[in-house]
Order: sequence, then structure tokens, then C-alpha cells
Amino acid sequence: MPYTFTAEQRTLLDEPNAFARVATLMADGSPQNTTIWYRREADALIIATGANALKVRNALRDPRVAVVVEHPANPYHYLQIRGRAEVVRDSAASLAEFRLIARRYIGEKADAWVDVFSPDYDGALM
Amino acid sequence: MPYTFTAEQRTLLDEPNAFARVATLMADGSPQNTTIWYRREADALIIATGANALKVRNALRDPRVAVVVEHPANPYHYLQIRGRAEVVRDSAASLAEFRLIARRYIGEKADAWVDVFSPDYDGALM
Repeated sequence: MPYTFTAEQRTLLDEPNAFARVATLMADGSPQNTTIWYRREADALIIATGANALKVRNALRDPRVAVVVEHPANPYHYLQIRGRAEVVRDSAASLAEFRLIARRYIGEKADAWVDVFSPDYDGALM
Repeated sequence: MPYTFTAEQRTLLDEPNAFARVATLMADGSPQNTTIWYRREADALIIATGANALKVRNALRDPRVAVVVEHPANPYHYLQIRGRAEVVRDSAASLAEFRLIARRYIGEKADAWVDVFSPDYDGALM
């Protein structure tokens, strides 16, 4: 990615319990907007979701996305990102990432919670 | 608007301090996503913003929008809306609406706060 997050942006993006609102494009070009867990790694945000989720199907067709992340305690402090999503349809990698992401939000309960989904997990990374 | 909010949806949308994340379309068709105050009236959400705000310019070009609203105390309880924005470039109407909207978020401080902006307010409704 050509963009590098500043230290201040990283601090906001790494805030525990901050959610991403991810807009993708439907087949007709109209926007879709959803709320989801994520994790920042270097200068990208990573989400783990169902392999056939609407946002995955949208991003495979047109990778342009727009994300807004707010500080969980102060929605007036927020960051807008416009960029491109890379979709990786790899269930094992998605499940491993899901585990890391879940730790951001539910801490030590994450492994047990992800294990509930893992037997028939069919996921992708974005 | 063809859509009618259910009672449960109205309850969520009327939650004090719930924010709208509004995705609009840029000139090149890519999405833009932002966080903003709003107020529900009947089956529409109303926002008051600057007459030349990016989302206003976007919606004037292409009215298709996608909104996500979460319960302020529980982001796992959220509502996605895909619809069309009607832009009204009427500064007086926008300012009056801004006053109503501000009351949702900052209560009795709203009037004094809006008064700070009112002398050179150049707004629109969406």
C-alpha cells in the first residue's frame, strides 16, 4: 500500500474495541456499509470474515473500499481511509487471523469463542 | 421513501448518541465513508452539514448512499440501510435542523453551541 499511517493514526487504529465501518461497492455501483472487527498490521487493516460475505463478494468485483474508524470512547475522533482491499480466500489463514482479531475485542475469551466457529469455518481475509 | 422502519429499528435509530456512518460515492465511483450526527424523522434519516461538504457534493452527483447505525452501548446491535439521499441546499432549514439534531447529542447545550456557527452558516440537509 502506498500509504503509511502516522504514529497518531496507529494509536487510534490500535485502540482496543475500535470497530471498522467498511463501505464496499455493490454490483450496481451503489455503496454498502457494515460494522466489523479488524486488526491493524503495518499500514493495512485486516478483517476476517465469511468467504461468501457480501463485502467479500463486493471487494472481489471492485476492490475500492472506504473505512471509518472512531475512537471507542470518543466518536468525534475518527479516521477516514479510502483504499483498495485485497481478498485472500484462505480459510485456515482467515481463522488464524480471526483468533488474533478476536483477542483485540474479547481478550482471553477469544480462543474458546473462535473454537466454536472453527469446525465448519469457511472464511476469507480482506 | 418506499421503506418503512420497524418499531425495533426506530428504537435503535432514536437511541440518543447513536451516530450514522454514511457512505457516498466519489466522482470516480469509489466509496467515501464518514461519521456524523443525524436525526430520524418518520422513515428517513436527516443530517445537517456544510453546503459544500464532500458527502453533499457526492450525493448531488449520485444519490445512492449506505448508512450503518450502531447502538451506542452495543456495536454488535446495528442496522444497515441502503437508500437514496435527497439533498436540500437551504441554509436556514439546515440550521434549524442542526439545532434539533444537536439536542439529540448534547441536550440543553445545543442552542448555545449551534449559535456559535449560525452567523456564517452555509449548510445543506441530506
